[in-house]
Amino acid sequence: MGKKMNVAVVGATGAVGVEVLKTLDKRNFPLKGLRLLASARSENRRLLFRDEELPVEVLSADSFQGIDVALFCAGAARSREFAAAAVAAGAVVVDNSSAFRMDPKVPLVVPEVNGEDVRKHQGIIANPNCTTTIMLVAVKPLYDISPIRRIVVSTYQSASGAGAKGMEELWTQTADVLAGKPAKPVTFQHPYAFNLFSHNTTIGENGYNEEEMKMVNETRKIMHDDTIQVCPTCVRVPVLRSHAESIVVEQARKVSVDEALAALSKAPGIKVVDDRAANHFPMPNESNDQYDVLVGRIREDLSCANGLALFVCGDQLLKGAALNAVQIAELLV
Amino acid sequence: MGKKMNVAVVGATGAVGVEVLKTLDKRNFPLKGLRLLASARSENRRLLFRDEELPVEVLSADSFQGIDVALFCAGAARSREFAAAAVAAGAVVVDNSSAFRMDPKVPLVVPEVNGEDVRKHQGIIANPNCTTTIMLVAVKPLYDISPIRRIVVSTYQSASGAGAKGMEELWTQTADVLAGKPAKPVTFQHPYAFNLFSHNTTIGENGYNEEEMKMVNETRKIMHDDTIQVCPTCVRVPVLRSHAESIVVEQARKVSVDEALAALSKAPGIKVVDDRAANHFPMPNESNDQYDVLVGRIREDLSCANGLALFVCGDQLLKGAALNAVQIAELLV
Repeated sequence: MGKKMNVAVVGATGAVGVEVLKTLDKRNFPLKGLRLLASARSENRRLLFRDEELPVEVLSADSFQGIDVALFCAGAARSREFAAAAVAAGAVVVDNSSAFRMDPKVPLVVPEVNGEDVRKHQGIIANPNCTTTIMLVAVKPLYDISPIRRIVVSTYQSASGAGAKGMEELWTQTADVLAGKPAKPVTFQHPYAFNLFSHNTTIGENGYNEEEMKMVNETRKIMHDDTIQVCPTCVRVPVLRSHAESIVVEQARKVSVDEALAALSKAPGIKVVDDRAANHFPMPNESNDQYDVLVGRIREDLSCANGLALFVCGDQLLKGAALNAVQIAELLV
Repeated sequence: MGKKMNVAVVGATGAVGVEVLKTLDKRNFPLKGLRLLASARSENRRLLFRDEELPVEVLSADSFQGIDVALFCAGAARSREFAAAAVAAGAVVVDNSSAFRMDPKVPLVVPEVNGEDVRKHQGIIANPNCTTTIMLVAVKPLYDISPIRRIVVSTYQSASGAGAKGMEELWTQTADVLAGKPAKPVTFQHPYAFNLFSHNTTIGENGYNEEEMKMVNETRKIMHDDTIQVCPTCVRVPVLRSHAESIVVEQARKVSVDEALAALSKAPGIKVVDDRAANHFPMPNESNDQYDVLVGRIREDLSCANGLALFVCGDQLLKGAALNAVQIAELLV
């Protein structure tokens, strides 16, 4: 370590921004200074960080003087507008949005999977889509045993993917429904209380929504393997802040459950939760607020000789966003 | 039609039994008489049927005199204890439990899929597991175009699979959690409010739970095709009474989305809900209380040449149980 850094958090008052601050604190990130940036809506707010009340400054192109690392957590539009200014001011941008993920000049990094790609950056490093990050942490140790040819994945995604207002909507709408009132969707298009629906992103020509195509394309880029075939189905379920994923992989050779368990048990960023006798497997209520991705239900795919099935849960706001961004920043120290 | 029948409903006061009564009424089942049977717990209760208050009688081996069709909806133990008595009394048993499903002498029937198997009965006809029924209604029209070789399915199952007490637990536990109280699991092992968990059935040697193995074995029996490979992952989500399923099929030849859509649109028991522009696909809140299985998100599997992906929703208490049982009884008329 040694070096201390001036860090800016863009979107500091949002659901992910708040988790970035908590994570910087909990992981003792070597901070020289911390600058909180947000839109004019948050002007005059102050946020507590390590017993100190820090002012929230209004984001502008001049916000990045003296900053070493700028963690962008304010959506793709803000990233497109201000990332270049941050880079020009000498900062390295770690961008949590989709704005630059598929740009060939921008590394897309999950530290447990391709941490070494950080070194190739030209000012911007992208943080992958949350479902992709959580899936790849779980399957990378399997890929290292034998290359993965195909992934069929169905997701069970939480409200937090739509930010604090998404979580708020699930919470208050559920209370309304329990009180006999109608569900009033605002942030999400469809009723959410005791319901589920296909992911709320635009559907492309091929019938897949944007979230699903992120899983296809980002997986190949992060794994440096354009031959991996992915069939994703992304679904929003009435859960607050952890994503779950049912994953079936097909590998070049048959990998036994014991081999998989051994590899997953010692892999970074993973906690194996796979107690068949107790019927205890990964669940959102146990992955909430956790850094590790929970991996379980590891079993042979009954339908394919070289297949393995697993079920994973990860905190969407942490490993799916804030934690992964801070881990990338740690690699820059 | 013509013939009218004396019908007994075993477990008439349970979640499925109540739906059987509603379905017999709504579908104008040709009733001569209706006998409601339940355990001693429901003694002296009366249930309304077509403006008439019918007494609930205590189930015994003598309950079936004069009965033509006995619809058993009281769990496998009751079915094992009393089905033989019903058959001996001359009734045909339509059994909603898992007791006889894999018995080679017992047809396992989804009317839209293998209705003709009803004719082979020797006194008992079994109603399949709810997830299997809903899946097979959706994939049978595809199988008829080209045989299905493999199914990878992940389920999003509702509380109603555990009966009225399961639904009640999700409802009251969610209210508790919203009020800041801890989740108190009773019927289900794990917290259910804003959570999800692997299906609450025993896990076998191969790592699959009983619900999953039902999907494997019942699919082959109903489809009369032991070569179909199935890889199921069964998950309970905080939804009240409809199951959803993310299904990926591999077929003998490539079936286009247009071919699939055409076949599904005219198939019995299916309503296609597949509006990509409006992001409107099958959802539990729209399949609740519906007879049809909703089918949508029909798209080519990006990971496999002969693959198709779809997402389906069906009412667990209706097509998953009561409706399918009544439809079987209709085939007996």
